[in-house]
Amino acid sequence: MGNGLTAKGQATRRRIVEGAAREIRENGVATTTLDDIRRRTATSKSQLFHYFPEGKEQLLLAVAEHEAGRVLSDQQPHLGRLNSWDDWRKWRDAVVRRYRLQGQNCPLGVLTSQLARTTPGAQAVSGRLLDEWQAQILAGIRHMQVQGHISPDVDAGEAAAALLAGIQGGVSILLSTGRLTHLEATLDFAIARLKASTATNAA
Amino acid sequence: MGNGLTAKGQATRRRIVEGAAREIRENGVATTTLDDIRRRTATSKSQLFHYFPEGKEQLLLAVAEHEAGRVLSDQQPHLGRLNSWDDWRKWRDAVVRRYRLQGQNCPLGVLTSQLARTTPGAQAVSGRLLDEWQAQILAGIRHMQVQGHISPDVDAGEAAAALLAGIQGGVSILLSTGRLTHLEATLDFAIARLKASTATNAA
Repeated sequence: MGNGLTAKGQATRRRIVEGAAREIRENGVATTTLDDIRRRTATSKSQLFHYFPEGKEQLLLAVAEHEAGRVLSDQQPHLGRLNSWDDWRKWRDAVVRRYRLQGQNCPLGVLTSQLARTTPGAQAVSGRLLDEWQAQILAGIRHMQVQGHISPDVDAGEAAAALLAGIQGGVSILLSTGRLTHLEATLDFAIARLKASTATNAA
Repeated sequence: MGNGLTAKGQATRRRIVEGAAREIRENGVATTTLDDIRRRTATSKSQLFHYFPEGKEQLLLAVAEHEAGRVLSDQQPHLGRLNSWDDWRKWRDAVVRRYRLQGQNCPLGVLTSQLARTTPGAQAVSGRLLDEWQAQILAGIRHMQVQGHISPDVDAGEAAAALLAGIQGGVSILLSTGRLTHLEATLDFAIARLKASTATNAA
């Protein structure tokens, strides 16, 4: 996200994107106008044009990238250092807490489904998020295998993909039913089975 | 689905719903009109009114129920008799095959997202599908536990919820990326770990 901006320019751009994200979280993407965002962020028309010359969709795409970043940062520092079962428990709790707070309103999902029809690159935001998320889970599984906490018999790539799929499904069931049970079950099942894998190996 | 209809009435209603489902699968829900459905199913206006007096949304809800039924029937007879690891493998293959054929177009998802805003009961169709699906997976896990093929240490309810969440997430990743890898990974990981659970128990 260099954009050739100075540090001050970067800060202004970030302020606009964060303000737009708050406005959209509160009032929805369909009804939020560029004027709403200008008012909220105390930005002039020419400033907004300077940072987002292609208009509203370019700004919404930047908000989607910001929301995707939050999905990962809300799981840190745990997701980035899954080095013990205690770390895994803390990560599990951070994921569940994040989605409990978010409830049935998924800002990133709303943005990407709104943008997908018109904006090239909107789906790529979700794709990059999933790739990065899975890579960090995979690094955790591999670390635990090296330490002997997860059996080498476990296919680490398969397990990481399964965990990510389970979280996605748990969140989608939360969005449609309001219930966290499936998100919790998928995390608890996978972690319990990974833990048990070393006993399997010893048998 | 009694509806107080005679057997002949039931058959006519089913013919209309199945024809409407085909029309919508081919041409999309947004552009399909009642006239399209009447033409395709050779149904008169008064016949259509007789079976769906509340109009298009009532018919679309019936189509959604029909599509939800197909999600389960496409997995049979395997889903209903998960009594050996060979049955589990056949079920796993049936799920993957079903979604490979379906690809990135999910008729039920399109219908329920279209109906959700306007039609009471549209979300309940998905809810009932998930409940029934999970109940059949749960019955399979419990059966395997009774037979000693899955450890009694496994929380059967949690495992069934985790499998369902994984499938939902795998399908949602398929819908957004076109890739089946996560659906396969979630099924293969869960089944491999359930299989390994008895070795754990013996340790």
